Amino acid sequence: MRFNKTLDAIKVYEAGKPIELVVREFGIDSKEIVKLASNENPYGCSPKVQEAVRGSVENMARYPDDSMYGLKAGLAKRFDVKTHEVIIGAGSDQVIEFAVHAKADSESKILINSITFAMYEIYARHVGAEVIRTASREHDLDAFYALYLEHRPAIIFLCTPNNPTGDSIDASAVMEFIAKIDSETLVIVDGAYMEYARYKDSAKALEPKTLISTFDNVLYLGTFSKAYGLGGMRVGYGIASQEIITALYKLRPPFNITTLSLEAASAALEDDTFVQMSIKKSFEEMERYEAFADAKGIRFIESYTNFITLCLGEGTDSTVVADALLRQGMIVRDLAGYGLNAIRVTVGRPEENDRFFALAEALI
Amino acid sequence: MRFNKTLDAIKVYEAGKPIELVVREFGIDSKEIVKLASNENPYGCSPKVQEAVRGSVENMARYPDDSMYGLKAGLAKRFDVKTHEVIIGAGSDQVIEFAVHAKADSESKILINSITFAMYEIYARHVGAEVIRTASREHDLDAFYALYLEHRPAIIFLCTPNNPTGDSIDASAVMEFIAKIDSETLVIVDGAYMEYARYKDSAKALEPKTLISTFDNVLYLGTFSKAYGLGGMRVGYGIASQEIITALYKLRPPFNITTLSLEAASAALEDDTFVQMSIKKSFEEMERYEAFADAKGIRFIESYTNFITLCLGEGTDSTVVADALLRQGMIVRDLAGYGLNAIRVTVGRPEENDRFFALAEALI
Repeated sequence: MRFNKTLDAIKVYEAGKPIELVVREFGIDSKEIVKLASNENPYGCSPKVQEAVRGSVENMARYPDDSMYGLKAGLAKRFDVKTHEVIIGAGSDQVIEFAVHAKADSESKILINSITFAMYEIYARHVGAEVIRTASREHDLDAFYALYLEHRPAIIFLCTPNNPTGDSIDASAVMEFIAKIDSETLVIVDGAYMEYARYKDSAKALEPKTLISTFDNVLYLGTFSKAYGLGGMRVGYGIASQEIITALYKLRPPFNITTLSLEAASAALEDDTFVQMSIKKSFEEMERYEAFADAKGIRFIESYTNFITLCLGEGTDSTVVADALLRQGMIVRDLAGYGLNAIRVTVGRPEENDRFFALAEALI
Repeated sequence: MRFNKTLDAIKVYEAGKPIELVVREFGIDSKEIVKLASNENPYGCSPKVQEAVRGSVENMARYPDDSMYGLKAGLAKRFDVKTHEVIIGAGSDQVIEFAVHAKADSESKILINSITFAMYEIYARHVGAEVIRTASREHDLDAFYALYLEHRPAIIFLCTPNNPTGDSIDASAVMEFIAKIDSETLVIVDGAYMEYARYKDSAKALEPKTLISTFDNVLYLGTFSKAYGLGGMRVGYGIASQEIITALYKLRPPFNITTLSLEAASAALEDDTFVQMSIKKSFEEMERYEAFADAKGIRFIESYTNFITLCLGEGTDSTVVADALLRQGMIVRDLAGYGLNAIRVTVGRPEENDRFFALAEALI
């Protein structure tokens, strides 16, 4: 059977190996496996969130409130925006999907960083759009601007802090950059890890309200998958002008998040103390990774997230290291596929990090 | 900002009113509201499913097993197919989305019944495909075939049992119909309510294995949202040849169902006794609706599902009736938007149906 030609160019996204798969492949006891590969919050979510979800289990037969009234009101309050400036997605991934499908087609170009979140390119391929990449590892906004002038893309993605590298752009630089972009180009600011950056350095903190009250052509993305500890529940959001939100809404399927996800995300917004505690612990543990790298004489990228990218020396192959760790039940992300001889490690709980250092000692 | 032209033709799907919205609009106590509008299973899901989900709440931070190994194995066993002949979606809606995006574009036509599930047309509009409809209320396969010859659609949807009318096509007629369709046309058999049809009349039961072993161009859809009582958890599936599944997989976003949804659906497959009990009760209660309609002298469509469509007389307006019921806390679906002077009522628990009959007595 023939399918649309756009499918020919699509490769399937390779997610971090789930614990279940490692258990099956290598026969390792699931209790022995440490997964530091998908930037999940190792402290999970607030006990209050767990309690709220347990209390809602009897509602699983009921479709969720498709207006998402409560969650949108919570986000609007948190960010001091209007509810009609908010859209909820099954992860911020789905908001990216809406935006790409709303704005780009096979005639369009989409401008992204050389190394960045894989889903931008995947959704670009879904619509047959051409992906233009900058050359440097970290976001170089001058290079972005030059390519913008050359290619006039329909969409520009800025991922800050960037995944999978962890670096972050100054908020003032982002504002100056967007001011130079024409109002017909959609600029998507992906702040999936913004809670971490905001905690570490206020100069990196981009506020959705400032962005959308200054620019009509900006879509800010956030997620409950990282700092909020709800990676498994698939809830993200977009914040933008009503015009953009209305367009994206046309592509939103009904009931796009689950009844329990709605409950979990709404409850998570109510317990910021837990979130801030987990961010604080993460950066305390991050210092141990930096000290480990310094002691081993390897470079790392300064991170504004809950993960750290370790750039290995010439004599060490990241794929070999990641594979050796995997066979001992330690799952990290090899960045060879991104053209980097590096591994990305989610900063885990102290005992998980102990295990990483013990295993990595012999490999790096 | 300009968006893709395809957005101009898209209208937003109107879901059944959730209980929360009625509470807000009319200030009715949520305990007083009965929702018989979205064909949810009023008996919910198995207690074993609830238990499994409660036990997994601490895993909400973890992304789901993206291979969906366990759930796919469960479905493959249930339907005697291979795991590579199965794809999981966030509701069968999402599998429809994958199929339409994989097979159709703005040059394509999609053939559907005059009155049928709204999402077929919505996804067709997403890709700019032209929708061709038959003329009759129930699936007329001769009319489908004539329109197929005339328009050569990329996709044909057969919804059996049909939503929102409840009627069902004989399985043998479906098999004879598909045999006449060329192998480049994708025939999608939406069996969202098939568990109910199979219980009531085996002549209506389409088996995925028979379909896909006979035809390379068929995609069978099923869901956990109806008989399995997991409407809020967004899990559906497609079963087809490996060739079709591989194409659809290219459009599947990673982690497209939640960690708890995966747990719930896998557990639900293990307790068929509960599902069969709820189907049995539903048809027992259905008889009361049929008796009510007969007593009132109004027609109904014989239903192979967990809902019944009551066709109102000339002097009674379905929108007026649905609105009057709503103001008293009884939510049903008005089918005026489908061109029918009818209401669709989900068969509820006995006490919910009592309430419907009591309120409807004065209105119909």
